[in-house]
Amino acid sequence: MKYLLLGLAALPTLILAQPSPNGPAALRDLALRDNTAWEIVEGLTTEVGPRLAGTVAEAHARDWAVARLKALGFQNVRVDPFEIDGWERGTERAEIVAPFPQPLILTALGGSGATPADGITRDVVGFGSLAELEAAAPGAVRDKIVFVWHRMGPTQDASSYVAFGPIRQKAPSIAARKGAAAIVIRSVGTGNHRLPHAGATFWAEKQEPIPAAALSVPDAEQLERILAKGQPVRLKLVLTPRFTGKRPSGNVIAEILGRDPNAGIVLVSGHLDSWDLGTGAIDDGAGIAIMTAAARIVASAGQPLRTIRVVWFGTEETGSQGGDDYFRRHRDEKHVMAAESDFGSDRPWKFETRFADSADPVIPQLAALLQPLGITQGLNDSLGSSDVRPLANNGTPILSVRQDGMRYFDIHHTADDTLDKVDSTQLRQNVAAWTALLAVAANDANWPENGVIQSKTIAK
Amino acid sequence: MKYLLLGLAALPTLILAQPSPNGPAALRDLALRDNTAWEIVEGLTTEVGPRLAGTVAEAHARDWAVARLKALGFQNVRVDPFEIDGWERGTERAEIVAPFPQPLILTALGGSGATPADGITRDVVGFGSLAELEAAAPGAVRDKIVFVWHRMGPTQDASSYVAFGPIRQKAPSIAARKGAAAIVIRSVGTGNHRLPHAGATFWAEKQEPIPAAALSVPDAEQLERILAKGQPVRLKLVLTPRFTGKRPSGNVIAEILGRDPNAGIVLVSGHLDSWDLGTGAIDDGAGIAIMTAAARIVASAGQPLRTIRVVWFGTEETGSQGGDDYFRRHRDEKHVMAAESDFGSDRPWKFETRFADSADPVIPQLAALLQPLGITQGLNDSLGSSDVRPLANNGTPILSVRQDGMRYFDIHHTADDTLDKVDSTQLRQNVAAWTALLAVAANDANWPENGVIQSKTIAK
Repeated sequence: MKYLLLGLAALPTLILAQPSPNGPAALRDLALRDNTAWEIVEGLTTEVGPRLAGTVAEAHARDWAVARLKALGFQNVRVDPFEIDGWERGTERAEIVAPFPQPLILTALGGSGATPADGITRDVVGFGSLAELEAAAPGAVRDKIVFVWHRMGPTQDASSYVAFGPIRQKAPSIAARKGAAAIVIRSVGTGNHRLPHAGATFWAEKQEPIPAAALSVPDAEQLERILAKGQPVRLKLVLTPRFTGKRPSGNVIAEILGRDPNAGIVLVSGHLDSWDLGTGAIDDGAGIAIMTAAARIVASAGQPLRTIRVVWFGTEETGSQGGDDYFRRHRDEKHVMAAESDFGSDRPWKFETRFADSADPVIPQLAALLQPLGITQGLNDSLGSSDVRPLANNGTPILSVRQDGMRYFDIHHTADDTLDKVDSTQLRQNVAAWTALLAVAANDANWPENGVIQSKTIAK
Repeated sequence: MKYLLLGLAALPTLILAQPSPNGPAALRDLALRDNTAWEIVEGLTTEVGPRLAGTVAEAHARDWAVARLKALGFQNVRVDPFEIDGWERGTERAEIVAPFPQPLILTALGGSGATPADGITRDVVGFGSLAELEAAAPGAVRDKIVFVWHRMGPTQDASSYVAFGPIRQKAPSIAARKGAAAIVIRSVGTGNHRLPHAGATFWAEKQEPIPAAALSVPDAEQLERILAKGQPVRLKLVLTPRFTGKRPSGNVIAEILGRDPNAGIVLVSGHLDSWDLGTGAIDDGAGIAIMTAAARIVASAGQPLRTIRVVWFGTEETGSQGGDDYFRRHRDEKHVMAAESDFGSDRPWKFETRFADSADPVIPQLAALLQPLGITQGLNDSLGSSDVRPLANNGTPILSVRQDGMRYFDIHHTADDTLDKVDSTQLRQNVAAWTALLAVAANDANWPENGVIQSKTIAK
């Protein structure tokens, strides 16, 4: 009897363990053989290429996106337009004038001011950290070219970017406040190639931007070595970016309509804009490709309970204006999940949530689905990626999948962000993870409706 | 008795196996802890940087070289001057105009012709090999921009460079003969970074150079992908290099004088000039550093029997004019060994000779000295590197040490050829190998005086 009872009790489990052909586990495994994501990132990077926010190229990317999303069978494909303050790169050139004349390779930071067309030549003053620059007397940097170096290394979880990112984001503003003529930083990146890393810098209110650029890592090491030899170093800098005034951007939105309009929206996203140096393959062609492919695979199993909304955000790189515009327009719609994939396409290794109840029974269900992909369960404190952070702060449940970051910052924001850097096998592992998560989020009757409302906004 | 006899017979061997503190084995091991080579390549790449043949930078490098070689204690430090036909890079820019507008990254090949300052725009016609281009009817390429791609991969022994190098060296001349307006090739290199590989191309006698450039590997893959989509591709090309007329170059020569002026000269070398994009760390700062450090370590053990002559050749990259000038001036001096290190500084794995007698007993002696470094014995057919080839063809005994080439062509002739690419441990392994070889060549009374005279000159 005892054995018989156990046998009966075990029966439902055994039945559940047989994956339904349309269930999350089956769809996950189907995704490992699906080519949709590769086709999206190949098409976008080849047929559009670089697509800086606010440029004609980004507009071209929106047209491409609308056509592709319609061709993939999505519904309600449309653009939410908005305007941004445009900025575009000009000439960029640097050379050491003394003591050892030679060119250096750099790129203007997003939002950099300009030198005159024939450049400026100044003495260089170097600092080994943001704190050293912050502590410097203004007299030490006034009318000089400030140089800030660092020792960022690769980490699996992007923590070194969190640690060193402020050098790019804040050092130019600090240098300008102290009267520097210009600033060059060691790229906030980990590659040893002569490909500088672009990226936005941020000025204080009403502050006049100074010329601000990132040297490639080998060039920064060269300048550091030359400074260490003890002779005065003079640098000539030609940087002619310009602010282009109000420019159009927009979010591209596509849906799979759910059976129950009251069941809420599950939002999956990436960003369509890229820095201008590369073709935006890992940042973030891969992200939109992963999320879009996952949505399509889930839809292939039949109409979901909830509406799946795919958003390809515009203008993430220069301050997440796309995420802000989305939140402004759509905050009152019932979002029961928001997610953005914006960390390339290397191996997924951890998933995270942010649900009101960290003991929500759906979490172990998700963990079991991702376990065969080698993805472990993380904490219930994810804020999502930058474009969905306003939704996260407003109490929308969040899902995140963390990807291996060991080579991401070799490539990120450089000319090297091209299709060949996308590993199609690892790309599909990401699609598989998101397919499983989205299949549950879009269909599970017990999906949580609440995340955690932040009383205080957490910075993107 | 038998055992006793064996014991006695073994005694001399045991004594020989105790290395003399000034012998080749001891010097080899000393070299594994010596920092001279690193200091040379660090100094040259930092304090001079790029040093294109015939430029002010190359002249600056000669001054630096003379000062450094004197400071290292060499004798008879001097420059053999010669003139070359100068060529310098100008603006270089490319963009796909249709069907998918976007910039491409390229660099002019050495000897490239120029476009007008505002560029040319033409249809692109693509070929997957030199043979395909060779077979094309002139009408298929006339007034078009030819594009040649390929599938070069890394090899340990540089054999893929031998296989694909002709695309750079010859395709421009072939395209020009067929009436092409310009040519772009996939870089003859193996890296997947957006750093194109420079390098010389060669025109037929009296042929007018056309604009000729190398796309970085990812850019070449992008253009190949775009062509494969089947729409006509138009490319705009701006390339404004110029021929600068007669320019000074020179070989820097330094010596350790031997005890016996009639015992001959052993010549070790590398080349001082570099392509202009990088700082010439692996090509060939490392080579001159390795050879110079080895000579200095051998000299530290006392005056050698033979004169050791260290040559830092000028103008290797654009046609080995330095090697030719050296041969013209010095061919009648008694050279009993010539060697050039010009393949970076990665792990040495094989040594080769070219002696008149391939059974010369010195060869096993060299093999035994290199065996502890993991260097195996190669054939007796080495022609040496390009600057010593005239000596090799003229019957000077040749030594070569082959280095691991798996990453050499990721870096070679690109902006990425910088100090950080030199691995100091592997650099020292090269110094150790050359120290051992040179200690024997400079001191062994039985060193062979004859190599193999080539009746027919073998191309560099």
